Amino acid sequence: MDYESYFARKLEELKAEGRYRVFADLERIAERYPYALLRRNGIEKEVIVWCANDYLGMGRHPLTIQAMREAAQKMGVGAGGTRNISGTNHYHVLLEQELADLHGKEAALLFSSGYVANEASISSLAQNLPGCVIFSDEKNHASIIQGVRNSRVEKYIFRHNDLKHLEDLLSQVEPQRPKLIIFESVYSMDGDTSPIKEICDLAEKYQALTYIDEVHAVGMYGHQGGGIAQMQGQEDRLNVIEGTLGKAFGVVGGYITGSRNLIDFVRSHASGFIFTTSIPPAVAAAALASVRHLKSSQEERLNHQKRVSEVKARLKLMGIPYLPTNTHIIPLMIRDAHLCKQMTDALLDEHNIYVQPINYPTVERGTERIRLTPSPLHTPEMVDHLMNALQDVWRRFAAKVAA
Amino acid sequence: MDYESYFARKLEELKAEGRYRVFADLERIAERYPYALLRRNGIEKEVIVWCANDYLGMGRHPLTIQAMREAAQKMGVGAGGTRNISGTNHYHVLLEQELADLHGKEAALLFSSGYVANEASISSLAQNLPGCVIFSDEKNHASIIQGVRNSRVEKYIFRHNDLKHLEDLLSQVEPQRPKLIIFESVYSMDGDTSPIKEICDLAEKYQALTYIDEVHAVGMYGHQGGGIAQMQGQEDRLNVIEGTLGKAFGVVGGYITGSRNLIDFVRSHASGFIFTTSIPPAVAAAALASVRHLKSSQEERLNHQKRVSEVKARLKLMGIPYLPTNTHIIPLMIRDAHLCKQMTDALLDEHNIYVQPINYPTVERGTERIRLTPSPLHTPEMVDHLMNALQDVWRRFAAKVAA
Repeated sequence: MDYESYFARKLEELKAEGRYRVFADLERIAERYPYALLRRNGIEKEVIVWCANDYLGMGRHPLTIQAMREAAQKMGVGAGGTRNISGTNHYHVLLEQELADLHGKEAALLFSSGYVANEASISSLAQNLPGCVIFSDEKNHASIIQGVRNSRVEKYIFRHNDLKHLEDLLSQVEPQRPKLIIFESVYSMDGDTSPIKEICDLAEKYQALTYIDEVHAVGMYGHQGGGIAQMQGQEDRLNVIEGTLGKAFGVVGGYITGSRNLIDFVRSHASGFIFTTSIPPAVAAAALASVRHLKSSQEERLNHQKRVSEVKARLKLMGIPYLPTNTHIIPLMIRDAHLCKQMTDALLDEHNIYVQPINYPTVERGTERIRLTPSPLHTPEMVDHLMNALQDVWRRFAAKVAA
Repeated sequence: MDYESYFARKLEELKAEGRYRVFADLERIAERYPYALLRRNGIEKEVIVWCANDYLGMGRHPLTIQAMREAAQKMGVGAGGTRNISGTNHYHVLLEQELADLHGKEAALLFSSGYVANEASISSLAQNLPGCVIFSDEKNHASIIQGVRNSRVEKYIFRHNDLKHLEDLLSQVEPQRPKLIIFESVYSMDGDTSPIKEICDLAEKYQALTYIDEVHAVGMYGHQGGGIAQMQGQEDRLNVIEGTLGKAFGVVGGYITGSRNLIDFVRSHASGFIFTTSIPPAVAAAALASVRHLKSSQEERLNHQKRVSEVKARLKLMGIPYLPTNTHIIPLMIRDAHLCKQMTDALLDEHNIYVQPINYPTVERGTERIRLTPSPLHTPEMVDHLMNALQDVWRRFAAKVAA
């Protein structure tokens, strides 16, 4: 077989479909976030980032930068091993305690990323509960899908947020079998939320474990930034709350929280946790500073919501349609991969606004979109600038979007 | 089902088996590596770490610390998104170029960890090559096993380093089907190496792709630190060279290198690459500094090998048996989980030497061991200290080891 030709042909197919991805080469400017330096075709220029998942700008907060710099100086740049073999640093211990406390749980466990947290926790839990059946929302993230798939246990996919469908499925499985319901609090691409209370009610009725992915909510919702479950007073009813340190907390890494036994069980069984170098102490230190800060400070959350409301109101005023949501994620539906790319290229080339076109496999084909994520650090002037740019681009491309 | 009782019972079983893991709470002291501060039962004491995978001590090298601190100051502590959605930083681009060059390849791709690099690359390659068959060494790392398993393609496990067995298996598969041979250069727990040239010969004969895991070799072998394949002049014959930034390079993260098309193919298909926040620019900057330094500096590699030889010679002199290897990994076989734990506890409690007992699932049951990893920063005095401590512990426990 001619492997090289095969790879080349497949890549050409992606290009023809309009979904070949070109990564924007950015250099974040910490002092003037959300500005970044873009390098493209040998040219450098400053752009304003409007699509980052550093939702609150904690990635450039003086406290997190200072924490990382100090820990790097004191402990170096790496952990030196897996958690079991010399790679547990005191900052991992402190961070896990802080995260458990954030969600009102007994214990927490760190992973390389939110993706790994989901894949490793779900697959190891389901695999090691004999006869386990998984119930998973159809819109769950790729990392959850991988975890479910890799567990190889019996699974049912329920229609998005459809309680009736979920109950139908739950009721069909033998009562004594272990059950695991997996869902998200905020769905990242549509920005909608799930009926947490009602899902927990069903879980109670059918004695299922509940696993919630709060990665697009932690830091941003709840009085401590514990997420939507915290905001709605449902934390105690969730067996596993999964979160990330890479979005609103601004760094990198994932985690789960839960009862001491459940966490210890995952810690002892999950391949993706056991066999990997732990995150650098300096990363854990920065994340710890971020979590602690957002536990007490309301300022970032308030300004974030304020900025989001402004952007939504301005879009409405201008007649630019967006998926209505009660969260910070604002999707402008374009529904065509090529067009989406043309529009974001125009925003970048002519207006110095960087928003990545979102295409398959991140969203389904035909639901391509521009996904705006305002942060507290986007100024009113930046909002004006964005609106003028969108108006210009919409004027030129709107007919095609409508079609 | 009573989930809590089930988890608790399973944890008790691990304890009874002697393989319940207690993580050592360490604080690495960058200025005096390999010293670390151990916290245990409310007591703090300094220990010498003899089991880290920061093989060359690059995790505390002034160049890597400086690079992380500067990048954190300038770009903040996180990447802010996935590689596709605002998370590609200029340091990722530079580091990928540097890694491609390190291995004499056209391109490279970064992952959250070496574990993810293996799982994501192997599963996406095999899944997307129609009819692919995998040939995997039986001693391959957990991350490779997961990648093979998650790909769900037809697979054959060949006996460790057994060329005859590998050829038998290769010859039984239809010639026109895509084939992928996966092996490691250095096996981390036994410290032995693979016959790279001979495996490449077979791959050529049967037109198979070759995938080598060099995580326990990069930085340490070859004139630039490109690994065993570089040292043996076999780099060009390997389609994928996988490595880590978390061991000899001292930071965290994994990567693959290969032809432009192959890398682009994995970049475009691997779920574990696409759907995850990229590593912080400051982490990439530290890794870049480390790779660049070890490309030209021979000092760390020479002193490393020297220290390893000394430790081996001293063990031999003292009559402490170790698995003979031609690498830097020195396994002292104990072959019993409880005994291994007792011996490492004695080393820690009485001699302030930290070596983690290695047990199942990291190694097979009955092959429990103490795994020593000398670094260039272990002084002759530290070697003396280690030898005295081992002598004491061996004197007390040797009878049981022999049994």
